[in-house]
Amino acid sequence: MPSFGRYLPILDWGRRYDRQALANDLIAALIVTIMLIPQSLAYALLAGLPPEAGIYASIAPILLYAIFGTSRALAVGPVAVVSLLTATAVGQVAEQGTAGYAVAALTLALLSGGFLMLMGLLRLGFLANFLSHPVIAGFITASGILIATSQLKHILGVGAHGHTLPEMLVSILAHLNETNWITLFIGGAATAFLFWVRKNLRPALGRLGTPALLADFLTKAGPVAAVVTTTVAVWAFGLADRGVNIVGSVPQSLPPLTMPGLSSELLGALLLPAILISIIGFVESVSVAQTLAAKKRQRIDPDQELIGLGAANLGAAFTGGYPVTGGFARSVVNFDAGAETPAAGAFTALGLAIAAVALTPLVHYLPNATLAATIIVAVLGLVDLSILKKTWGYSRADFVAVVTTILFTLGMGVEVGVASGVALSVLLHLYKTSRPHVAEVGLVPGTQHFRNVNRHKVHTCPELVTLRVDESLYFVNARFLEDLVQKRVTEGCAIRNVVLMFSAVNEVDYSALESLEAINHRLRDMGVGLHLSEVKGPVMDRLRRSHLVDDLNGRIFLSQYDAWEALARSNVPRAAE
Amino acid sequence: MPSFGRYLPILDWGRRYDRQALANDLIAALIVTIMLIPQSLAYALLAGLPPEAGIYASIAPILLYAIFGTSRALAVGPVAVVSLLTATAVGQVAEQGTAGYAVAALTLALLSGGFLMLMGLLRLGFLANFLSHPVIAGFITASGILIATSQLKHILGVGAHGHTLPEMLVSILAHLNETNWITLFIGGAATAFLFWVRKNLRPALGRLGTPALLADFLTKAGPVAAVVTTTVAVWAFGLADRGVNIVGSVPQSLPPLTMPGLSSELLGALLLPAILISIIGFVESVSVAQTLAAKKRQRIDPDQELIGLGAANLGAAFTGGYPVTGGFARSVVNFDAGAETPAAGAFTALGLAIAAVALTPLVHYLPNATLAATIIVAVLGLVDLSILKKTWGYSRADFVAVVTTILFTLGMGVEVGVASGVALSVLLHLYKTSRPHVAEVGLVPGTQHFRNVNRHKVHTCPELVTLRVDESLYFVNARFLEDLVQKRVTEGCAIRNVVLMFSAVNEVDYSALESLEAINHRLRDMGVGLHLSEVKGPVMDRLRRSHLVDDLNGRIFLSQYDAWEALARSNVPRAAE
Repeated sequence: MPSFGRYLPILDWGRRYDRQALANDLIAALIVTIMLIPQSLAYALLAGLPPEAGIYASIAPILLYAIFGTSRALAVGPVAVVSLLTATAVGQVAEQGTAGYAVAALTLALLSGGFLMLMGLLRLGFLANFLSHPVIAGFITASGILIATSQLKHILGVGAHGHTLPEMLVSILAHLNETNWITLFIGGAATAFLFWVRKNLRPALGRLGTPALLADFLTKAGPVAAVVTTTVAVWAFGLADRGVNIVGSVPQSLPPLTMPGLSSELLGALLLPAILISIIGFVESVSVAQTLAAKKRQRIDPDQELIGLGAANLGAAFTGGYPVTGGFARSVVNFDAGAETPAAGAFTALGLAIAAVALTPLVHYLPNATLAATIIVAVLGLVDLSILKKTWGYSRADFVAVVTTILFTLGMGVEVGVASGVALSVLLHLYKTSRPHVAEVGLVPGTQHFRNVNRHKVHTCPELVTLRVDESLYFVNARFLEDLVQKRVTEGCAIRNVVLMFSAVNEVDYSALESLEAINHRLRDMGVGLHLSEVKGPVMDRLRRSHLVDDLNGRIFLSQYDAWEALARSNVPRAAE
Repeated sequence: MPSFGRYLPILDWGRRYDRQALANDLIAALIVTIMLIPQSLAYALLAGLPPEAGIYASIAPILLYAIFGTSRALAVGPVAVVSLLTATAVGQVAEQGTAGYAVAALTLALLSGGFLMLMGLLRLGFLANFLSHPVIAGFITASGILIATSQLKHILGVGAHGHTLPEMLVSILAHLNETNWITLFIGGAATAFLFWVRKNLRPALGRLGTPALLADFLTKAGPVAAVVTTTVAVWAFGLADRGVNIVGSVPQSLPPLTMPGLSSELLGALLLPAILISIIGFVESVSVAQTLAAKKRQRIDPDQELIGLGAANLGAAFTGGYPVTGGFARSVVNFDAGAETPAAGAFTALGLAIAAVALTPLVHYLPNATLAATIIVAVLGLVDLSILKKTWGYSRADFVAVVTTILFTLGMGVEVGVASGVALSVLLHLYKTSRPHVAEVGLVPGTQHFRNVNRHKVHTCPELVTLRVDESLYFVNARFLEDLVQKRVTEGCAIRNVVLMFSAVNEVDYSALESLEAINHRLRDMGVGLHLSEVKGPVMDRLRRSHLVDDLNGRIFLSQYDAWEALARSNVPRAAE
């Protein structure tokens, strides 16, 4: 059933599942579950939702992705950047803490799931490519800074708000005098502890001779330790009465069946944010899945990934969650812990379901500051300014795109940041192609190969000008070539033939066709031949549909060497006439 | 003074001016002046301005363009499309017929002039290339239909309004019962007469043996004859009292010194329309200028043209005009009448100045219907639906761009029409480059040339896969190549080396560099060599700044033939091991 199996990858790995794979998947699931409990609560906080939403968003989505997704190791659920985007989008239509807010988050997941599903069925996965690597890197870095800053209010125990860095900083400064010192102590200690776990625990355990798997487990359990310690402290010393904000009552239940809001007003307001979240979530998820798949010589199918992530988001929409995607940290942990198949995800979902039913009363006294510390430590790993240095050295256009994305994301919010990064990347690309490099080429001695006369020692012939056009010819640069040929031909007095070497011309659109016709016409008037060489198949197919081929004031040569043989040698004797 | 002369082309032709050139220029100026008097009045009507604005807009701008412009034959002044755009833009900020309307038109000219000047000084003429030929053709055609329709109300003598075709048609139908039959008779007769002059007078005169120059003159004077006849008729029969709308009093004066409105609100509202008008006007003007220059083996400098047109618009802003550009009809007439230098334009300006002082009282009884007839006959020449057939045959993407531009211009107005045409062209281009053509190539027997294995009979070697990537590698298609190479290599079992033939790769941006690094990494893990061939100079310069060249799991060959020699032959014996 290959055609059916295409949409249900589970049929592929499911029939080969064995005891060894089961054991590996169970161990991986245990480690991931322990890591996910505090993380899910924390990301729900970041998204402005009640803590259980984070847990619910990790259960049905994981199961659905296990059925429809193609990556063996990807762990789907709430992630930092998407949580931030959710807070931004939903905050525009509802007040945090209201029932409308949670319903709008469901709607956002529904729209996002529907859009991803649609993109997958239409096989539009390539659209994600409009986000260039520098724009993604800049966006993730700026988001990390934004997210970490947004959590400072929980560490300080003050009420602050804002969606941009200046707004947040001003708001925090304005409320600084309300700082709750106990909260600050808890938050500061938790942050310091988690940083230490992240950076130093593993090597320390290694020096003590702890087995690798146990060391791994202990490191991953760091956040759990912070959660347990601070919760017990708040409970034991009654700190909630002294102004420390706590998670409070969390319903003790499996994910509920929920209905997203479907009013046309809500759908209209959330459509664009949902598309943005879908694309960013998809790009993040595919990057992770591809990286992990490559390590095991597996491949993922981006269009099927869209369907898997779409199903996961639809699941989140109907089970009290909010938009989800494949997370980097959790997926890597899952992979490193030895997950072999998507069944590991199913077991994680089971673990979280047990936690939702059995453990939620225990987090009543968990201080928000601890969750904020978890988020800060997690997202500062996303901040990577090295992309600035790398792109500066390689390409100024890419550097400009990174800087613009970072500054606009920090200064004007995530949506404007991504949009301006994408728009600028496209404009810079168009600008570059609008003034293409055109090389005058000659024959490399002893070969049939032609290269730039300014870079290589080559044979040339004064009566024959060969221009290698290093760009597809389309409207943005059509007129450029007209001017260039005109200029070159009026400069050289003895020119009898012009060859346009089309080895790098991958398209000739209608505007460019008209320009070529104009060039042909002018050169004919001047008594100069116009020839083409090395025209590729697809371009030739198209040119044959025009009059250019018939009207051409010259010939079309298969290779530039053929053109040289025909035009350079035959002209040399004539030059002596 | 070459550097100074660059900005003042008048210094170039001025010093070589002689008696013969003077005579030619004077004759051309006379013919153009006679044609321009009714046309200027008519276009002012189209722009919603008092008739004298059209004359004023033809005087100072012509003089300024003569000093700063590079085309010898271009005639600058009000043109149909720009008049329509002016009516649309100014209509959004002021009511027609008010003083604020005329002031806003001056502001539009000021902004447009400033923008053109700035583009010229920054040498940004290439920006005009974003308007592809199909988009321009579609836009001009749709504008012609819109303009002709907008004049129907003057032919019928009814009040109607609207900026889109449906709006106009509905409005005209709603007012149809108010039709003034005398106006309709005048308008209908004038239209029929002008069509006859345009199509049949010249051949008829030829058959009668009229000398060519006289025939030319009589044909161009057709609108003047219509103006004189209908004006006299209205005056003689007192038709103005019977509901025929007339031009009315026109001040008898040289162009006045005027001050554009400078309130930030007005500037803000008109900035985008001014940019649009500038770009469209520039494109129209440059196309005309290039066509005419090519006929005399002259060249125009697009960046200097921006300065010339910018100066012309600034002139219009301070002398009671409105946005101007180089017009097709008037420029062709000027050229055909033998204009040799921009001095012909100066003489035309003189003729119009005399007309503004001496002839304006005579047009008092000129019916608007005659001016409308002049416009209709002029603009229907712009309507050319053959672009639909041409692009359909050549390229569906271009066809879609034309159709979209036409439909959106007619249905949603000129600004939306152009914007959607440009946006769609760019998106279609990006879409095409996102899934590039990649050919697997082999050696054409008896040559050193490599072509597509599916199109040509070529030699190949099973251990060596050579992929010719037919597109620049950048973010939009970076991931595509990753997938493609991965797929091709996992398919063929005996593959030892992959050569990426970069003859058509004109750029490798940072995203693509990362993809190449990923490909390199994966192929190394699989024990397969990755090589590049025919990397162009500029691309190689950039790659050298990255780690890819050092880390490459293979070599970089100057030519594909070198790669073949090194990899195909050396591998063949090994295959027998």
